[in-house]
Amino acid sequence: MKILITTVPFGNKNMFPLEMLDDAGIEYLINPLNKKLTESDLIEMVADFDIIIAGTEPITEKVMDRASKLKFISRVGIGLDSVDLLAAKRNGIKVSYTPDAPAPAVAELTIGLMITLLRSVQLSNIQMHEGLWHRYFGRRIAETTIGLIGVGRIGARVLNRLTAFGTPRLLVNDIFPDKELNRKFKLEWVDKETIYKNADVISLHVPLTAATKNMIKREHLEMMKSDAVLLNTCRGGVINEDDLYNVMNTGHLSGASIDVFTQEPYTGKLRDIQRCLLTAHMGSMSLDCRIRMEIEATEEVVRFIKGRTLESEVPEAEYKIQQQGL
Amino acid sequence: MKILITTVPFGNKNMFPLEMLDDAGIEYLINPLNKKLTESDLIEMVADFDIIIAGTEPITEKVMDRASKLKFISRVGIGLDSVDLLAAKRNGIKVSYTPDAPAPAVAELTIGLMITLLRSVQLSNIQMHEGLWHRYFGRRIAETTIGLIGVGRIGARVLNRLTAFGTPRLLVNDIFPDKELNRKFKLEWVDKETIYKNADVISLHVPLTAATKNMIKREHLEMMKSDAVLLNTCRGGVINEDDLYNVMNTGHLSGASIDVFTQEPYTGKLRDIQRCLLTAHMGSMSLDCRIRMEIEATEEVVRFIKGRTLESEVPEAEYKIQQQGL
Repeated sequence: MKILITTVPFGNKNMFPLEMLDDAGIEYLINPLNKKLTESDLIEMVADFDIIIAGTEPITEKVMDRASKLKFISRVGIGLDSVDLLAAKRNGIKVSYTPDAPAPAVAELTIGLMITLLRSVQLSNIQMHEGLWHRYFGRRIAETTIGLIGVGRIGARVLNRLTAFGTPRLLVNDIFPDKELNRKFKLEWVDKETIYKNADVISLHVPLTAATKNMIKREHLEMMKSDAVLLNTCRGGVINEDDLYNVMNTGHLSGASIDVFTQEPYTGKLRDIQRCLLTAHMGSMSLDCRIRMEIEATEEVVRFIKGRTLESEVPEAEYKIQQQGL
Repeated sequence: MKILITTVPFGNKNMFPLEMLDDAGIEYLINPLNKKLTESDLIEMVADFDIIIAGTEPITEKVMDRASKLKFISRVGIGLDSVDLLAAKRNGIKVSYTPDAPAPAVAELTIGLMITLLRSVQLSNIQMHEGLWHRYFGRRIAETTIGLIGVGRIGARVLNRLTAFGTPRLLVNDIFPDKELNRKFKLEWVDKETIYKNADVISLHVPLTAATKNMIKREHLEMMKSDAVLLNTCRGGVINEDDLYNVMNTGHLSGASIDVFTQEPYTGKLRDIQRCLLTAHMGSMSLDCRIRMEIEATEEVVRFIKGRTLESEVPEAEYKIQQQGL
């Protein structure tokens, strides 16, 4: 069995995942281009491999058609938008993922970015380095209305961490509302429009699906309060980037924090907007979570090869979401 | 009675403090230079006034000598390093402050800055705006050893908020250790050198006194782990800025967040270091805390003028600290 590890970096802060493969006598190749692979990169690369340990590269039907030996995809991470699950099923390719590992790192970064936006830290930092001194007024989390769209593994962890900062008003939306959360938090389950219109802080924690792609367009951005802040640490494509640029360029929104992009590496126009805080898809990039993700994904590969039961195969619900375009 | 309001901005997001003075028929002048006043600015300005509502401007013995009518200083904020308390006492000038109001805002910003440094957000943001894509590895709070120097009103609130992010190892130091905190947190009370040598995150929450001025010099910075991050949201002058520049310039420390400076506005060399996150003394600048500070300081002025008992006169302990150079 030959393994292609497409996600980079991999095994470079902790050798354990690679040692696991070595110990099991498994042959592997780490993405030799050392960048996020495109569909055509993958098509050129996959022919020989039985297993892919994947990041967010597009493993489409075309890629699978070329990968005639492919039997198993082990995703390092939670999002499945990059894998055509239905094509995988048709081709008899199993898919596993690591749904819990990245959540604490994403949730923690999200809180840091929220405070940064609410206090205009990103703006003050740029200005201070340019020699300008302006003391921005900000808001504390407790003084705001926070709207979360998507309250699954990551959104719920954001709620947990928010409670340490007092009691903001919490507006939440999810297509599968987990009402158990009401035992722990004072939540208002509302439609997305209510969040757009009323929240001071809007943070997105949805998967990228047919239903969430381009979910936030110009009309939704314009509904938001002029001094609202918007965070996207989930997936590029959920917010229309051109619309965000155009709307922020008019002065609307007091800040945005965008960690994920339709096309990564990102080189688009949001770079021209100083109050748009940009980071390089770093939500899950804490050392411990990243290592845990790599280890879990590798353990699944070893289980697959040894014919053991998989522990985190993608559940049927995820296939339904892609089927129904939810 | 004539009042000089030296701190700016004042009353511009919420008119209530000014309305309180108007309602009481009290005449006031807001700092006409609209910048942080120097000692000589104050000397030129104070002669006529009975009361000062003060920010962090240096109200020295020289200033008081010139302010022959001055009877009361009401500090908007907690730090008293800017007021010569012993000279005030000799001149029969009473001093009040607002010790609790700024604490939640400073503590919350500190957590945001910690996460920013641990995840290299400030670096990624600069690089993304320049078109560079680099995914930094970071650390979650729970995976670090955090050292707090000063665990009073603000330090204790930082501890409260940290607990939402898991259980980092907590090293703490204070000249007056509040052992009651041990009931709530698992703390290791250690000397400062132990913090410098062992902490991944070092955050300062001390007042500026003779004992804390220049507390962190080259030798202490060099003791720190090469990938440690250092935060100062308390007072400029606690860290020697030249030494910090020189040490960071060699590549030591993975980041620093400096919100307060020996001379404000700051125009020094730390501006040349990208991994040094700089903000314009914004710790207390949340709208709610700032307004609370202004209202509390103004209420004290009204009490003073009406001959009522002051509610937040600076306690004797603060005079002793200045007397003993603690």
